[in-house]
Amino acid sequence: MTKRIYTAGLVVIGDEILSGRTHDKNIAQVASWLQVQNIRLAEVRVVPDVIDTIVGAVNALRESYDYLFTTGGIGPTHDDITVDAVAKALGVDVVIHPEARAILERYYEDKGGLNEGRLRMARVPEGGELIPNRMSGAPGIKIGNLHLMAGVPHITAGMLDALTGTLEGGEPLLSETVGGFIPESEISTQLRDVEKAHSECQIGSYPFFREGKVGSNFVIRSTDRAALDACMAELCERLTEEGFEFTPGGI
Amino acid sequence: MTKRIYTAGLVVIGDEILSGRTHDKNIAQVASWLQVQNIRLAEVRVVPDVIDTIVGAVNALRESYDYLFTTGGIGPTHDDITVDAVAKALGVDVVIHPEARAILERYYEDKGGLNEGRLRMARVPEGGELIPNRMSGAPGIKIGNLHLMAGVPHITAGMLDALTGTLEGGEPLLSETVGGFIPESEISTQLRDVEKAHSECQIGSYPFFREGKVGSNFVIRSTDRAALDACMAELCERLTEEGFEFTPGGI
Repeated sequence: MTKRIYTAGLVVIGDEILSGRTHDKNIAQVASWLQVQNIRLAEVRVVPDVIDTIVGAVNALRESYDYLFTTGGIGPTHDDITVDAVAKALGVDVVIHPEARAILERYYEDKGGLNEGRLRMARVPEGGELIPNRMSGAPGIKIGNLHLMAGVPHITAGMLDALTGTLEGGEPLLSETVGGFIPESEISTQLRDVEKAHSECQIGSYPFFREGKVGSNFVIRSTDRAALDACMAELCERLTEEGFEFTPGGI
Repeated sequence: MTKRIYTAGLVVIGDEILSGRTHDKNIAQVASWLQVQNIRLAEVRVVPDVIDTIVGAVNALRESYDYLFTTGGIGPTHDDITVDAVAKALGVDVVIHPEARAILERYYEDKGGLNEGRLRMARVPEGGELIPNRMSGAPGIKIGNLHLMAGVPHITAGMLDALTGTLEGGEPLLSETVGGFIPESEISTQLRDVEKAHSECQIGSYPFFREGKVGSNFVIRSTDRAALDACMAELCERLTEEGFEFTPGGI
């Protein structure tokens, strides 16, 4: 029997995110892509370029969730140690993947050829398969439930594109939004009561400040369309009772 | 004796980040702020609005690092459970903080007064102190080495501002950058060798693609100014030897 819900963890690897030098774009990108695959991103860890810290995060998340993704640390330089860390986590050797080597030889043919650094990008944990990279040659790596991807967001995007439709997902998580210039603190009791009455739904409340006024968008999520619609109907009823104007779809 | 290096963990709490609905801005904001306090952000975990997952992340990071920060989940609605999770992690009760209650009473005096949801924002783990919030009334909370802050980035910014200069930091982490239209894969061996020769320094390599050309910025980090300068000088020497043009400060 198919499991109803599939989950994923993400390990974002790189000192540059933790130093504030680079604003991470991969969490949102991977999160949005997973939604479309009907897989829920359950946890993210951002870790530095330190092998044992990466090993710890990889082992914790690969065992907790159906899938694990990593971004960063698969380039040609000395601080790119994701392959070594994953091999250590899995207890396997690092080997040169012949197809990856061939891809890199072709890619660098008119750019000075392979050298020691470039050859690093053909290294995989033993047993790894390749994730195509149409942008810059060096492939990502798939091994077991792990998917090692680049850190540069547009290259990551290409790898996600190559993985689209290849992972088994569960039932889609449906969502409906309603919003308005409604202070969440004036409707918190009703939100809680509506959520309690609809056990197959979760309601998230997302406040904002705009045009000099406070407001909120309320997002209801469920895998069950009928449950979602019933919850949405009751929430709108409560908002009307309280005298609030609201917009389906959110504002 | 003062410890040389102070570290921090960050727990970002919220389903909206994991669903891809909201792009996190707090990791970069907290990371940059910590740099100025001479505290290193060592690890980030993004977790959903699930109490035991928050408890697990809080307990793991508060024990591993000097400081722990959280963002999100301290508002008035049913999905704001950070205070409950932290109290559970610390093994203390949740209590109403009298000063927080007074702040909220003043803030909501002309906005309909306190109600059940708004009073939630006066709840703290027993022993907690307040972090001022000049933006929207509801304060953050400081307890032991934990700092619970809002999820809305401009409110988080105000709380960080209130904390500026109040946390003991270590020696500043200095950095120097040099960059150019240099493919990192053509200089990876040299980068590794220079880093090996300068054990008090780390070199990060950050590739980019711009104006149709690939390039890299190399960031050297160290707490020792003389070591940093020597490492920088040698790296520039190697880049010159290899025939690359480069720009101090990076491009």
